[in-house]
Amino acid sequence: MTVTIVGVGLISGSFALGLKDNGFAKHIIGVSRTPASAARAIELGIIDEALPLLDAIKKSDFIYVAIPVDATIPILKTILDNITEKQFVADAGSTKYAMCEAVANHQMRHRFVATHPMWGTEYSGPEAAVRDAFRGRACVICEKEKSDKDIVDTIENIYKTFGMNMIYMDADAHDMHAAYISHISHITSFALANTVLEKEKEEDTIFDLAGGGFESTVRLAKSSPAMWAPIFMQNRENVLDVLNEHITQLRKFKACLEKENIEYLQELMENANKIKRILK
Amino acid sequence: MTVTIVGVGLISGSFALGLKDNGFAKHIIGVSRTPASAARAIELGIIDEALPLLDAIKKSDFIYVAIPVDATIPILKTILDNITEKQFVADAGSTKYAMCEAVANHQMRHRFVATHPMWGTEYSGPEAAVRDAFRGRACVICEKEKSDKDIVDTIENIYKTFGMNMIYMDADAHDMHAAYISHISHITSFALANTVLEKEKEEDTIFDLAGGGFESTVRLAKSSPAMWAPIFMQNRENVLDVLNEHITQLRKFKACLEKENIEYLQELMENANKIKRILK
Repeated sequence: MTVTIVGVGLISGSFALGLKDNGFAKHIIGVSRTPASAARAIELGIIDEALPLLDAIKKSDFIYVAIPVDATIPILKTILDNITEKQFVADAGSTKYAMCEAVANHQMRHRFVATHPMWGTEYSGPEAAVRDAFRGRACVICEKEKSDKDIVDTIENIYKTFGMNMIYMDADAHDMHAAYISHISHITSFALANTVLEKEKEEDTIFDLAGGGFESTVRLAKSSPAMWAPIFMQNRENVLDVLNEHITQLRKFKACLEKENIEYLQELMENANKIKRILK
Repeated sequence: MTVTIVGVGLISGSFALGLKDNGFAKHIIGVSRTPASAARAIELGIIDEALPLLDAIKKSDFIYVAIPVDATIPILKTILDNITEKQFVADAGSTKYAMCEAVANHQMRHRFVATHPMWGTEYSGPEAAVRDAFRGRACVICEKEKSDKDIVDTIENIYKTFGMNMIYMDADAHDMHAAYISHISHITSFALANTVLEKEKEEDTIFDLAGGGFESTVRLAKSSPAMWAPIFMQNRENVLDVLNEHITQLRKFKACLEKENIEYLQELMENANKIKRILK
């Protein structure tokens, strides 16, 4: 089939490489606001040609949208306005509720599948695309019952061939879990980078002393603000809820230190160790 | 030379493996409060025999202490009370000020080198020891001028042969930088694990959805409370200082979300992106 990817970056680029590598797509069209990114995506073999959105839709069986979640909503509406019953569309956004609401009553809603392949890195742009990126990760599909069975089957088959484990959720449940498990990690990492940049005025010292622990906790602070600011905003109630809890948890550590209560400090850390049960 | 390692865990075990692999030690004695750990360290080829501390000191040229920082102070005093002018001792603790103060006036202070090889993982015990662990990392030596030149040279030679970059600091400067660059990362990771365990009651969901981002930010929460509680306590003023800053930084994110101020949110994240300049 002919596939259009809207956005030619980390997720869409990795998805496009997977489509080609696994024989799902013969021809891939890229849609990008940035001509330089489109050119680079062609150079890297991620897309075969770059076209404006409406031209790309006309030539495609399947349109895959992976751009910042605020931009996704109007683009998705435009795509649904312009596809036929034989075409279909999916997105890869990290928030699902606002988008599902926005297209809930669109007459072509049944030709859309809301997906969230839960993989990413702190890098962006076509150079960030990775071959075989999604293997072993979870992929959430929301409101499966609102999408035609044939296109759900096709998209599941693609993700499963990429090695992903399919999970089904309502859009609001997805956003809540995503806040807890993914979005808060990004907020803490951004805030930790700002903390260290604020306190440690000697940047050479950070460079010299930073070990593996620092790099892993602060790694996500390299992530794209253009991608993450809209995620946090669309999911602000869930993110605020978990952020408040996180500040409460940090205050417990603070109180232990202030009161020199080493027993409670150790208890807090022993509780945190329970994460070993869940992560390998 | 014959070397005693006090503690047979992550750091001491990795240090002992390096000593053997690089021909620095023919015979390595382990001192451990836990007979099972000593036996395991012998099985793993980390130590050649296990002895009580005073017996081990008598047979050793060099004693290397890598145990929790609260236990280090009395043990270090005992070692200094029992060594001759031909023997020497070093420690590997993550805090330096309290310990350097504690032995400042000891008559054998000049036979002691205060070191902090800045490498670690979230694992502990003899099984956590890693061959060639320290390569490319920084090693801080504090109060170099208080140690005899011959033993500083010997210890530097060992760490440099292991591939470490030597850095020299006062003990109080070390503890401040360590709070900023290492200790706060551990606190945020412990607190993040507690946050997620508190909010996400469905542990299966954490297991299913957790991607690379979550794992990297929460990895340090697997670290040993017995090792880290004394570090935070000994360095509590610096840790409190940076923890207060971190809570302030998190509150800025919170305010952005509450006020739906996406411009300032993006600014905060762009500032955090500056960490790219410093980390590779």
